[in-house]
Amino acid sequence: MSSHRIDVLTLGNAIVDVLAHTDEAFLVHKNVHKGAMQLIDEARAEELFADMGPATVISGGSAANTAAGIASLGARAGFIGKVKDDATGHHFAHDLKAIDVHYDVALAKDGPATARSFILVTPDGERTMNTYLGACQNLTPDDVNPDTVKASSIVYLEGYLWDPPAAKEAFRKAVSIAHAAGNKVALTLSDAFCVDRYRDEFLGLMRDGSLDILFANIHELQSLYGASDPETALAALREESILGVVTRSAEGALVVTRSETRAVAASPVDQVVDTTGAGDLFAAGFMTGLVRDLDLVDCARLGGLAAAEVISHLGARPQTSLLDLARQEGMLA
Amino acid sequence: MSSHRIDVLTLGNAIVDVLAHTDEAFLVHKNVHKGAMQLIDEARAEELFADMGPATVISGGSAANTAAGIASLGARAGFIGKVKDDATGHHFAHDLKAIDVHYDVALAKDGPATARSFILVTPDGERTMNTYLGACQNLTPDDVNPDTVKASSIVYLEGYLWDPPAAKEAFRKAVSIAHAAGNKVALTLSDAFCVDRYRDEFLGLMRDGSLDILFANIHELQSLYGASDPETALAALREESILGVVTRSAEGALVVTRSETRAVAASPVDQVVDTTGAGDLFAAGFMTGLVRDLDLVDCARLGGLAAAEVISHLGARPQTSLLDLARQEGMLA
Repeated sequence: MSSHRIDVLTLGNAIVDVLAHTDEAFLVHKNVHKGAMQLIDEARAEELFADMGPATVISGGSAANTAAGIASLGARAGFIGKVKDDATGHHFAHDLKAIDVHYDVALAKDGPATARSFILVTPDGERTMNTYLGACQNLTPDDVNPDTVKASSIVYLEGYLWDPPAAKEAFRKAVSIAHAAGNKVALTLSDAFCVDRYRDEFLGLMRDGSLDILFANIHELQSLYGASDPETALAALREESILGVVTRSAEGALVVTRSETRAVAASPVDQVVDTTGAGDLFAAGFMTGLVRDLDLVDCARLGGLAAAEVISHLGARPQTSLLDLARQEGMLA
Repeated sequence: MSSHRIDVLTLGNAIVDVLAHTDEAFLVHKNVHKGAMQLIDEARAEELFADMGPATVISGGSAANTAAGIASLGARAGFIGKVKDDATGHHFAHDLKAIDVHYDVALAKDGPATARSFILVTPDGERTMNTYLGACQNLTPDDVNPDTVKASSIVYLEGYLWDPPAAKEAFRKAVSIAHAAGNKVALTLSDAFCVDRYRDEFLGLMRDGSLDILFANIHELQSLYGASDPETALAALREESILGVVTRSAEGALVVTRSETRAVAASPVDQVVDTTGAGDLFAAGFMTGLVRDLDLVDCARLGGLAAAEVISHLGARPQTSLLDLARQEGMLA
């Protein structure tokens, strides 16, 4: 796959994270669903920010985190997502350019502010996200540069893109161009509640040939199939004509095809500080493995390595070279 | 000292930190002095930001970090410093309010933007700071609320305040009110180059009765006395009628009075990630010890504990309850 100019192009909401440590009581007080992503309006954003603890501001956005992980692993990444031409947007765009992630989407000159996600991190390391979509609402098919999509070995899309009104058209445009060029398309289900909002559409994408690879955690997969137990959901996934990659937190991951299901253990972590970005970085490692022609189990091991780094500190992007870590473990040359 | 409404009021430049990991070569390429704080203008700030790595944005400012440390240790802190009424200023003010640090300075409605320090963190954990002072330039004596100063057991001032033009008048006003009320005044020398800029004025403050306590690291102390070796500087400090507290990184701290010098070992640290805030947090622990009536050696031990926490992660403010840590170590009840 090395003939492509970009290894993986990711498409998603362009968000700057505002992270704070909090206790469980605050989640209850604010009536937020622990572990989930909820969409909020500007008034709610102001209220949450006023009441939350000291903030660490770091670029985020699920698919953008994945692009950052791919770049940190030494592969060539690109990103498509919309920010405004404001201080937060400049921070976001800077952080991609600083790690050589290709980013050619124009910054919005007017309209709502750059998106922010107010992320509450509890002592167990779990994150609960409250996202103001802002400028992400204005992502349109015009923001998808066909040449960039054609040049990308894999196009990776986040399910969260179903939330802003015009973004799903950008999403469909990217799928169409990618497949016409003979490139692969991957989707992450993003969040169990997001799946609940768009279940039929996601199943449609899986079954109409739009997708080659599906990333999901086990809760999202159960939500997709309305299955109360993991085994039922996994059995349903095995029937799809798709490569399924299912993460199960500390229990590791499963690589699922019609012919076989292979389990891969999670990488050890001394202390889980903040799970923000765990799934995003798992996908980064897995897809980097794919473009490096690793076998599927080694792809999942590389995903686990990347996820383990990101949950060991606050924030959803790598703070050390993942390529160096992978080389130390003998996973990449 | 518990009759006061505020234990420690700190006065300093109100700054939001923009931190990035970098290599040594980048420092050389950008011609910055490793380990120091250099003042930069807006053009240089733009240039540095464009070229530096992905940024983590966290409230900083030396004296404000000290206030945050004092609050984390369970004591009552206040802060005086100037931000603008912009997104960065709101972040800064929010982060103080979120930890119950008293902050009653009005946000500037016009003039330069809230100050930012572009902090380059090398693999050895050392930080090199490039500070755009912005709104800090507009701190004036009017921003010093006399009632707040009178209500504070200790007023703590940073040497960096000598840089903005009107701030030293605010500084002098605070000293005068504090001493008239019978309260203590402390100064940190901030930075060896800062001492170089204002050596005679700092020595004047030490000798005209303005100061009761001096915080310095050994490099700043040598700069103050123009001494090429530590022992000469310490001998000079012993001649001053002042309590001297001298930090020496991993070699621990010295508490110096005319009658004796006592050494205190540094607290153990697994891995030094980022030394930003080490001195600020040492001062926080030391002064919390003072207002809790600990003896001077135990004050320094509490300082070491607070410093050890802050250098174990990115950013200059505590990410865990220092009071809990101090209780685990039996240093505070």
